[in-house]
Amino acid sequence: MATIGDIIVAAAINIITALVFLIAFGILRLQPVNDRVYFPKWYIKGLRTTPTASATYVRKFVNLDYRSYLKFFNWVPHALSMPQSELIDHAGLDSAVYLRIYLLGLKVFVPIFFFTWTILIPVNWTNNTLQQSKETYSQIDKLSISNIPHASPRFWAHVAMAYVVMIWTCFMLKKEYETVANMRFYFLQCEKHRPDQFTVLVKNVPTDDHESVSEIVDNFFIVNHHDNYLTHQVVCNANKLAKLVKKKQKKQNWLDYYQIKYSKKPSKRPMMKTGFLGLRGEKVDAIDFHKTEIEKLSNEVAEERKNVMNNPKCIMPVAFVSFKTRWGAAVCAQTQQARNPTLWLTEWAPEPRDVYWKNLSIPYVSLTVRRVIIGVAFFFLTFFYMIPIAFVQSLANIQGIEKVVPFLKPIINIKLIKSFVQGFLPGIVLKIFLMLLPKILMMMSKFEGFLSISRLERRCASRYYLFKFFNVFLGSIIAGAAFEQLNTFLNQPANKIPEIIGIAIPMKATFFITYIMVDGWSGTAGEILQLKHLVIYHLKNVLLVKTERDRERAMNPGSIGFNTGEPQIQFYFLIGLVYAVVTPLLLPFILVFFALAFVVYRHQVINVYNPKYESRAAFWPDIHGRVITALIISQILLMGLLSTKHAAASTPVLLALPVLTIGFHIYCKGRFEPAFTRYPLQEAINKDTLDRVTGPSLNLKGYLQNAYIHPNFKDDATDHDDGTDIIPTKRHARSLSGQAQSLSGPASDRGDHSGKA
Amino acid sequence: MATIGDIIVAAAINIITALVFLIAFGILRLQPVNDRVYFPKWYIKGLRTTPTASATYVRKFVNLDYRSYLKFFNWVPHALSMPQSELIDHAGLDSAVYLRIYLLGLKVFVPIFFFTWTILIPVNWTNNTLQQSKETYSQIDKLSISNIPHASPRFWAHVAMAYVVMIWTCFMLKKEYETVANMRFYFLQCEKHRPDQFTVLVKNVPTDDHESVSEIVDNFFIVNHHDNYLTHQVVCNANKLAKLVKKKQKKQNWLDYYQIKYSKKPSKRPMMKTGFLGLRGEKVDAIDFHKTEIEKLSNEVAEERKNVMNNPKCIMPVAFVSFKTRWGAAVCAQTQQARNPTLWLTEWAPEPRDVYWKNLSIPYVSLTVRRVIIGVAFFFLTFFYMIPIAFVQSLANIQGIEKVVPFLKPIINIKLIKSFVQGFLPGIVLKIFLMLLPKILMMMSKFEGFLSISRLERRCASRYYLFKFFNVFLGSIIAGAAFEQLNTFLNQPANKIPEIIGIAIPMKATFFITYIMVDGWSGTAGEILQLKHLVIYHLKNVLLVKTERDRERAMNPGSIGFNTGEPQIQFYFLIGLVYAVVTPLLLPFILVFFALAFVVYRHQVINVYNPKYESRAAFWPDIHGRVITALIISQILLMGLLSTKHAAASTPVLLALPVLTIGFHIYCKGRFEPAFTRYPLQEAINKDTLDRVTGPSLNLKGYLQNAYIHPNFKDDATDHDDGTDIIPTKRHARSLSGQAQSLSGPASDRGDHSGKA
Repeated sequence: MATIGDIIVAAAINIITALVFLIAFGILRLQPVNDRVYFPKWYIKGLRTTPTASATYVRKFVNLDYRSYLKFFNWVPHALSMPQSELIDHAGLDSAVYLRIYLLGLKVFVPIFFFTWTILIPVNWTNNTLQQSKETYSQIDKLSISNIPHASPRFWAHVAMAYVVMIWTCFMLKKEYETVANMRFYFLQCEKHRPDQFTVLVKNVPTDDHESVSEIVDNFFIVNHHDNYLTHQVVCNANKLAKLVKKKQKKQNWLDYYQIKYSKKPSKRPMMKTGFLGLRGEKVDAIDFHKTEIEKLSNEVAEERKNVMNNPKCIMPVAFVSFKTRWGAAVCAQTQQARNPTLWLTEWAPEPRDVYWKNLSIPYVSLTVRRVIIGVAFFFLTFFYMIPIAFVQSLANIQGIEKVVPFLKPIINIKLIKSFVQGFLPGIVLKIFLMLLPKILMMMSKFEGFLSISRLERRCASRYYLFKFFNVFLGSIIAGAAFEQLNTFLNQPANKIPEIIGIAIPMKATFFITYIMVDGWSGTAGEILQLKHLVIYHLKNVLLVKTERDRERAMNPGSIGFNTGEPQIQFYFLIGLVYAVVTPLLLPFILVFFALAFVVYRHQVINVYNPKYESRAAFWPDIHGRVITALIISQILLMGLLSTKHAAASTPVLLALPVLTIGFHIYCKGRFEPAFTRYPLQEAINKDTLDRVTGPSLNLKGYLQNAYIHPNFKDDATDHDDGTDIIPTKRHARSLSGQAQSLSGPASDRGDHSGKA
Repeated sequence: MATIGDIIVAAAINIITALVFLIAFGILRLQPVNDRVYFPKWYIKGLRTTPTASATYVRKFVNLDYRSYLKFFNWVPHALSMPQSELIDHAGLDSAVYLRIYLLGLKVFVPIFFFTWTILIPVNWTNNTLQQSKETYSQIDKLSISNIPHASPRFWAHVAMAYVVMIWTCFMLKKEYETVANMRFYFLQCEKHRPDQFTVLVKNVPTDDHESVSEIVDNFFIVNHHDNYLTHQVVCNANKLAKLVKKKQKKQNWLDYYQIKYSKKPSKRPMMKTGFLGLRGEKVDAIDFHKTEIEKLSNEVAEERKNVMNNPKCIMPVAFVSFKTRWGAAVCAQTQQARNPTLWLTEWAPEPRDVYWKNLSIPYVSLTVRRVIIGVAFFFLTFFYMIPIAFVQSLANIQGIEKVVPFLKPIINIKLIKSFVQGFLPGIVLKIFLMLLPKILMMMSKFEGFLSISRLERRCASRYYLFKFFNVFLGSIIAGAAFEQLNTFLNQPANKIPEIIGIAIPMKATFFITYIMVDGWSGTAGEILQLKHLVIYHLKNVLLVKTERDRERAMNPGSIGFNTGEPQIQFYFLIGLVYAVVTPLLLPFILVFFALAFVVYRHQVINVYNPKYESRAAFWPDIHGRVITALIISQILLMGLLSTKHAAASTPVLLALPVLTIGFHIYCKGRFEPAFTRYPLQEAINKDTLDRVTGPSLNLKGYLQNAYIHPNFKDDATDHDDGTDIIPTKRHARSLSGQAQSLSGPASDRGDHSGKA
């Protein structure tokens, strides 16, 4: 078991690593040549451009102003100074709310930290159970619940603290849920015209041999939503077209590459081989070859486009139906249309850029089958993923490599390389799997048939969290792969499981402290450095960039990565809540993580990330639900732990905790969740009226006619504008942010405020 | 263990009992004096009246026509001959669909019976495992799975049969779900104007000091449902008034009683004592006393009525809001109205007579708390009900009685009485508890805050089923009270539990066969005799009945008793599915139950029961869900059983069964359940259009103005008409039944049929 000394060493190492990352970032971000890596958001918004030619050549790449280096950390106040309303305006509601998760972590754990340190640490410390026992122990254990003798009345302090933790966490969760719900309503209320406010996605339109999908949709909605129906757009199956366009894009990139190569060395025309990976086959002039290829593809694309437009078989039984008012759309989205509930399924249309086009044509029965398949597959992935890994690991040994590539034999047999391969290969296989895991989960969610990218990411996040819970949290505590745990769960009595885990928990505190420092501290500091993007950008810059537009395309701002980032935060909530009562020593480490991550991600959101979609904080119920889950898990484990400590009297008192927590969750679910899944008619009417009174009369039909067009039907040129025509471009949209500042005040529940606006 | 001989004896006893009941019923039903006990439904519908004076005096009471006695069982063809469409017309959709549960039982188990008897019985019989083992066994066990040697390949026959059972059951369930959903739609489509088609129940109206609830509701709906809103009715808190009215009613009954007594013996005016239970106090003239009392109460009622009407504090934040069209009501019922999802909660209004008025004023937060409390209470009721029972039993012994009522001592000490008391008292305490259980569950559901009687009954039914599952099914199998089981569940590994139950199952087959015969055969035959109602009716007839109207009020047709009847049927589904593969011998006993119960309840529905409400088969999703649950339980138990038989190879094949069943359930839930919870806009528009085209123009506002008035505000005289103005009174409403016959054919899913009508 680690001593305090070990922890200090580990902390020192990780603090130094984090500092190195931060300093490296501090230096690199000042270099103009890296500007597009560290401030892409501003370029995308058109508020920053490549340094003009007026500067000297060197200054275009390196920052020579020594004074700027003195303020290594002045990005921190910069990141923190932007007020929330401006942040929403600048980066969208999703990002602003995402940052609130870190804030929530601080709000939850700072008071818990003070409470537990002032009460539990003295209570734990002033015993000498561990000294009397003959087992080895560390100073850390002296601060934990392990130091309390069996059946001591002091356990009541821990039970009381468990109540304090529950009450405080629930209180903060409720407050935050309320705030986010109000932010969401306010955001919706302030938004300009957006196609998804008027549009409903209608799935499973029944088909007919005599009528086209478009006619069927028209007839149906004219009858059933007579007063509100405006127009609709059918959806074409453009998956083949998308493939062709992508292929053309690739060829175009190669053409660019060769043209740049040629322009740098005009003496020699670049040549290439047409065969496998450019290694075999005939040698041809690369530029000419690609030009003809692109021309061929352009024709194919045009033909396919025409085909998709005219072939009724390419029209999918799906339509985006638009209404004259938000009220009409809200009614249609929330009601059942037809007697057969698997036909005419309606839901709010996602934003145009949020639509996941490929899944629009999956029929209803298939969806159930897919859901069951993925459920089973995920179960096996979680509990048995070690089996294929172990299999691949057994293949990836020296003998295996020798068999597959016999000519490498002499090299491998060199002792140094041999030991390297033997030592690292198995670990690398596992590492690669874990790196691929989010991608695998995303593929699973895509297969399951969700229709918007935001929902795909949310689903991935839940699955990733589950995976982490079983394989990292429980896996670290009861030490064993998940399928061994499964074996334990099935073969142990139900009331023994919390005990088994409960006993192990205090012993694993040091492991989790180290985990927090490596993954949480160094990892977060590494995130701000954006090393991967830095390298790729500069590579692209050298190889591909010709014009300003190319440089823009080489820029990869990335996004916040909800599907992996959120489960990570939740994991810290879990550890924090589990250890709050057991080993309060762990809390400051979590606090440092939350504080650091808040600053880092706030900087990233402001300067780097470019969100792919705006779901208007639709993910908050998930966040809330997972924190509640973590709370309940911590309560059950505490019960298990205390039952091994012969503190049986506390069990009934502890039993009330999860019951109360579940009750709180039911309450919150009813009280706040609808704000994230439905659009109240009152709000819709208010917004409609507001529009009629204040706004200029808009040609809504013209506006909505082409809003939901498959991206491949638009001109390539408009690709990049997708983002900008949806998020307000001007940083200081005063009219919006001015009102938005009132958000922090208590918003009226009955919407009177917005009603009078 | 019981032998075949034992079973035959038990069967003989129960068949004789059942026959005695049926013959007694055959005789009693022919006596005109019992007419109102055995045919109240026809009286309520006004299609049968008390025999006229033209008959001789004796014939008014006793049937002397010997020929009619020869046809003891001619009620059976009578009961079966009424076609379903007429039955719906006559007794309502709820009753007709309820009968289909018995039919479903027959449809599921008849083919399973043939399959298992032709395949499994020979497979089981042609072994001699039991002969070789030294344990005692019966011939019944020879026919069961117990007779198959360990690890025999013959188990594959059972696995295959489990698949057959699953596929057939799911197939029938799906077909039935579809039929019932179509019946429901057809019924809705054919109904005349009914207030609940246009009305939405709005709960949690926000209150305001300056405006009345009525004004607030008006303003809100005029703004948010401008085109559709028609009118509304606020709800008064008339609980106190209801109490007064009930009290007055009681006094009135006594007055009637004394007046009859007086009219029979005009020589002596009846006297009574005013004190406790009429045993103590001053002696007064009973008729005068009650007359003054009633007058006093009438004044109080009138005052309270005025008070309720005028006092704004008695107006609850609840309203019945009516719309101009069904479309408008459907929109309002299915959407969220206000930003705060706990205000302006809308749901379809129940029928006026289905409303449970007392619960209308429970606020939202309280609902969550109540739900949690009842959840916990039900858990304790299910698993620990034996504790208070045992406590009461320990009190209810000879010593206890002697202490409480010492003057009984000499009587109790007589040996015969002593042994009687000692032998029966504990059993009686348990029996009383079990008789009270449905009432207790109903109280729990009422406390939970459901707003309609139909939902209360449905909730009770689920709870009663759960209770029966744990305490009767599992309790009989692993022999022990539920809290001992709970102990087993907690202290045994999860995979051991199905094994423990699995081993015990074949051994308990004879117990369940006896159970089916006693509870199912004799119990059902007893139901048709209506002994309790018969006695009570004749008592009332002698003591209270003065006029024809009194006789009408003495009649108690009862209702189908969904909250206890449905769990009973489900219990047979459970036993049948569990034993289908294990001991097929049990199936014919279940078939007899289903067939007998179908005939008996069809007779009762046609002639006796008068349903309290019409929920339009809203209970079917529960039925479906519980059969699915039974199927899954049977599959898990089979897995447990086979794993003890060393047939491990079959486990993976069996594991697929519950997964497939759950998949099927998810599919059905999505495909059919919305038909029972929502009203599709297409249907609403169709019906609206139909009304406009065919129906005479109705003054909807006038019609709806007083539809939802608290029953105590109506005149007492209208009490009895409640039923009749809602169910069509004429038996042969040809217009309806003629169309309804087409129901059995496959109805169009897209509602085109009704659209063209």
